[in-house]
Amino acid sequence: MTQKNAKQPDRGVLSAMDYQYAGTRDIEIVIEQPEFTSLCPMTGLPDFGTITVTYVPAQKIVELKSLKYYFLQYRNHGIFYEHAVNRILEDLVAVLSPKRLSVTGCFTPRGGIRTTATASYEKE
Amino acid sequence: MTQKNAKQPDRGVLSAMDYQYAGTRDIEIVIEQPEFTSLCPMTGLPDFGTITVTYVPAQKIVELKSLKYYFLQYRNHGIFYEHAVNRILEDLVAVLSPKRLSVTGCFTPRGGIRTTATASYEKE
Amino acid sequence: MTQKNAKQPDRGVLSAMDYQYAGTRDIEIVIEQPEFTSLCPMTGLPDFGTITVTYVPAQKIVELKSLKYYFLQYRNHGIFYEHAVNRILEDLVAVLSPKRLSVTGCFTPRGGIRTTATASYEKE
Amino acid sequence: MTQKNAKQPDRGVLSAMDYQYAGTRDIEIVIEQPEFTSLCPMTGLPDFGTITVTYVPAQKIVELKSLKYYFLQYRNHGIFYEHAVNRILEDLVAVLSPKRLSVTGCFTPRGGIRTTATASYEKE
Amino acid sequence: MTQKNAKQPDRGVLSAMDYQYAGTRDIEIVIEQPEFTSLCPMTGLPDFGTITVTYVPAQKIVELKSLKYYFLQYRNHGIFYEHAVNRILEDLVAVLSPKRLSVTGCFTPRGGIRTTATASYEKE
Amino acid sequence: MTQKNAKQPDRGVLSAMDYQYAGTRDIEIVIEQPEFTSLCPMTGLPDFGTITVTYVPAQKIVELKSLKYYFLQYRNHGIFYEHAVNRILEDLVAVLSPKRLSVTGCFTPRGGIRTTATASYEKE
Amino acid sequence: MTQKNAKQPDRGVLSAMDYQYAGTRDIEIVIEQPEFTSLCPMTGLPDFGTITVTYVPAQKIVELKSLKYYFLQYRNHGIFYEHAVNRILEDLVAVLSPKRLSVTGCFTPRGGIRTTATASYEKE
Amino acid sequence: MTQKNAKQPDRGVLSAMDYQYAGTRDIEIVIEQPEFTSLCPMTGLPDFGTITVTYVPAQKIVELKSLKYYFLQYRNHGIFYEHAVNRILEDLVAVLSPKRLSVTGCFTPRGGIRTTATASYEKE
Amino acid sequence: MTQKNAKQPDRGVLSAMDYQYAGTRDIEIVIEQPEFTSLCPMTGLPDFGTITVTYVPAQKIVELKSLKYYFLQYRNHGIFYEHAVNRILEDLVAVLSPKRLSVTGCFTPRGGIRTTATASYEKE
Amino acid sequence: MTQKNAKQPDRGVLSAMDYQYAGTRDIEIVIEQPEFTSLCPMTGLPDFGTITVTYVPAQKIVELKSLKYYFLQYRNHGIFYEHAVNRILEDLVAVLSPKRLSVTGCFTPRGGIRTTATASYEKE
Repeated sequence: MTQKNAKQPDRGVLSAMDYQYAGTRDIEIVIEQPEFTSLCPMTGLPDFGTITVTYVPAQKIVELKSLKYYFLQYRNHGIFYEHAVNRILEDLVAVLSPKRLSVTGCFTPRGGIRTTATASYEKE
Repeated sequence: MTQKNAKQPDRGVLSAMDYQYAGTRDIEIVIEQPEFTSLCPMTGLPDFGTITVTYVPAQKIVELKSLKYYFLQYRNHGIFYEHAVNRILEDLVAVLSPKRLSVTGCFTPRGGIRTTATASYEKE
Repeated sequence: MTQKNAKQPDRGVLSAMDYQYAGTRDIEIVIEQPEFTSLCPMTGLPDFGTITVTYVPAQKIVELKSLKYYFLQYRNHGIFYEHAVNRILEDLVAVLSPKRLSVTGCFTPRGGIRTTATASYEKE
Repeated sequence: MTQKNAKQPDRGVLSAMDYQYAGTRDIEIVIEQPEFTSLCPMTGLPDFGTITVTYVPAQKIVELKSLKYYFLQYRNHGIFYEHAVNRILEDLVAVLSPKRLSVTGCFTPRGGIRTTATASYEKE
Repeated sequence: MTQKNAKQPDRGVLSAMDYQYAGTRDIEIVIEQPEFTSLCPMTGLPDFGTITVTYVPAQKIVELKSLKYYFLQYRNHGIFYEHAVNRILEDLVAVLSPKRLSVTGCFTPRGGIRTTATASYEKE
Repeated sequence: MTQKNAKQPDRGVLSAMDYQYAGTRDIEIVIEQPEFTSLCPMTGLPDFGTITVTYVPAQKIVELKSLKYYFLQYRNHGIFYEHAVNRILEDLVAVLSPKRLSVTGCFTPRGGIRTTATASYEKE
Repeated sequence: MTQKNAKQPDRGVLSAMDYQYAGTRDIEIVIEQPEFTSLCPMTGLPDFGTITVTYVPAQKIVELKSLKYYFLQYRNHGIFYEHAVNRILEDLVAVLSPKRLSVTGCFTPRGGIRTTATASYEKE
Repeated sequence: MTQKNAKQPDRGVLSAMDYQYAGTRDIEIVIEQPEFTSLCPMTGLPDFGTITVTYVPAQKIVELKSLKYYFLQYRNHGIFYEHAVNRILEDLVAVLSPKRLSVTGCFTPRGGIRTTATASYEKE
Repeated sequence: MTQKNAKQPDRGVLSAMDYQYAGTRDIEIVIEQPEFTSLCPMTGLPDFGTITVTYVPAQKIVELKSLKYYFLQYRNHGIFYEHAVNRILEDLVAVLSPKRLSVTGCFTPRGGIRTTATASYEKE
Repeated sequence: MTQKNAKQPDRGVLSAMDYQYAGTRDIEIVIEQPEFTSLCPMTGLPDFGTITVTYVPAQKIVELKSLKYYFLQYRNHGIFYEHAVNRILEDLVAVLSPKRLSVTGCFTPRGGIRTTATASYEKE
């Protein structure tokens, strides 16, 4: 059951909207997707987890429906936990140019072992 | 099911009472409204969430019944999460002139995705 | 159902005991009374809540039974949340002269809205 | 039902073992005894609570079975909450000479009121 | 039921993979094994607990399946809680050379007493 | 602190409304009042509890606001748990003539002991 | 804030689909809508609750999106709890002709009192 | 640490009151004592558990304070779980002559193993 | 994003083992798969849910790894909740010929609405 | 990592005590061992679970310490869930000759799938 990764997740599906209070006031936004699923690149079996994105926007906020479709691209994509978290972070930073943003992936147990990974970005 | 926003929420319904210990001692007040509901400006469908207001009053504290009626104005009003949180913050700051105040909106999942947003004010 | 406040809560019922380790070692004491009830001064209807007292004694610790009777005095007394919290703080500080002391009142929802208030004292 | 305290709790029953990584690496150890019981010195009635000991050993760690027997000595001993917490702290510090140690007692409600007390020690 | 420790746990079974974002971005990884079991060196009876490893990799991340087999080696091995936590820390640090790493063992109650122990490493 | 019971709770404050589906369809209604409080007739001290009323109406349903005021009458009334439950049952049966009705009182612990009492009525 | 009920909830928005296993095997379906809201016909203020529908279909199953829109009609409609539950039951029975069906409404507390109501239908 | 059982628990401390609704209506009463403790007759070490008494009185109900003192007699008494449950049942039946009565003891784990025992009586 | 169902889930991947106590004693087996996911046939979007299988074997028990692979076949398959539950039931009955078997699917909310469906089989 | 089952679990380690109320009154006893572990006969890897034994004794009750040692024998023994449950039931019935007895094994997830199995015995 090996898995060809013909189609890489594409950040192009992400769309952003203007944050109306940009320059006036910061807002911290936490987005939680408990239905994230991807494939293990070694076994081809599905992994399940919760992805949590926490960010402070600069000019743009992410449109939630587009984020949902972005996450859906991982459904049949083989990727390790640690790299998925980093990739989601990079794609969101590229699209939103936020003041700061972090991504946490909390994955359901495999072989009895549960893993959580967190990567962070802060604008310099 | 598009939604005309004929009537904007009006901060005029908010009333304030004197804080009897003003100048003597600070008090931190947390108010939680778990029955907040507004409309999504894109679909016209209702959003549900919990609004939490945390503040330290200067001279005035908010009268709770008036706050309840203030929140009721959002029931048939179309507004994005992030802007509702900012608007509530602005209206309360205008009426109370508090030492500090923050507003958090924690909304029930849409498309499986849960969102929480927090905006803060601090008197300079 | 308006309410005459003939009898004000009286701090005289509070009694204190010596803290045997005074001068040797600090102790932080947290006391929680989940059965606090008073009356709303506007409607005369009862309010219910949990009062939490956290303090570091100097020479004296409060005797718990006397504290219970002190809280009982609010049962038929009309007072706003924010003022009850401040009053309890003042009475306990007067009787105990503690190093620091805070009082939190967490009240059950009214009109769907839950309120928590915290006031603090620190010896200079 | 008054209670004579003929036999004071004796720290002599506590035994300690060498901490093998002393000088190499600190370890923080948390020990929780949810079955602590003593007697109220005023009424002779039993009190129940959870004692939590948190410490960083220097050369010695406490042997758990001896700690259990140490706690058992309070079963028919009359002592106030605040003093029990301090006494346990003193006995453990005397036997272990730890880098730091704290004791928290969280007692079941009496007269509806719950009490928690925490005392701490830090080597100078 | 004394226990000969013929075979010591062997860090050689641990394998590591490259962290693809090494030098670019830190990631904090939390791994939880709730099915850890070893033997008490005094009684030969089994201990049960949850081992939690938290680390920030430098160049290497641990391969989860190898970690699972590493933990399995403790199943018939007699060792005290505090030393197991330290040993796991040393083995993981030796194999991963992480930026920082901590190990917490939370063990099920014995004689009614629950113990938790935490050791930490930070690269200088 | 003995308590004169000058004013007995009066079922006259209870009001009932027509059940519009009487004769067509049964409905089971569960009403929970978690803020019930009365006085212990022996000590005069307050008791707290949750009263749950479960009933199937015949022609009448209870008006909730009147029920709230009915319960308020117990606030300064001395009565044992078991009799309060029976009395509430009798008053509601008298006013509603329901098909069946039961009352459960679940009271907060006194002396560490929690009590729950349930009485039931069924129309013959 | 009285409320004119110009537009009654209309069962015409409900649509049904064929149950493919009709005649072969029964299925019990439980549908839970935790975001139900209507208006109190006396005060015009919103009520909030969870509606649970449990049924065994005969030939038809309800289409979930149409059910969502059906519930939305109550948002600005004034109706008592007990009647809302009965009305929803009647509308669903009319559209689905199920073998059996029940509706439970569990409403958030008003005046501290929580109400749950259940009505049931069974085909003769 | 063997234990002489000089003083057997004495049912004489139990007192009963008239049940005012005897002959009119049954009431089911559940009494929960979560602070029960006795001694293991083999090791002399304390056992802890929750005793739950459920009964329907005939003419008498148990006075709660006397029940508390009755349970206190087990504190320094050595008895097996299964026999304690039976003995409490016999003593309560003797004093109350109830319509039916059951006793459940749920004891905290020993050697990792938790035990619950239930005995029942029904008047013929 | 419509979905072609080229490959139907195939019961051929299910394998069974002998139940060693067949004819001697019944055993009830409950299997819970909380990571079930399929596609909505109308929108092509993923559904998530927990499938619970409860059965009493006759001669055969299901091999768990094969069941896991069987469930995996639904990952990219479009099917309604109610039909998925029925289909899984039919496939397991065909392979196991159990004495009785039921399947429950509890799906995560869509549009705020949660659905649970249960189908059952019993050998005549 | 295949596993030779040289030593089968031996019911000889189980010991029983007289039930003092035999012939007088039934008692239902529930024993829960949450630290059960055995080996999977296919992979040699450990399984973890909770074993619950529920029984009504005739003449004998099981001695808990001997039961603990009995369960320990499965630690390095390879056996399927369903057969372990049956074997424990047979061994306990053989030693206790109870009126009735059931054994439930609730095992931690493997491959994301959780299994529970229950077997029962009743004296004819």
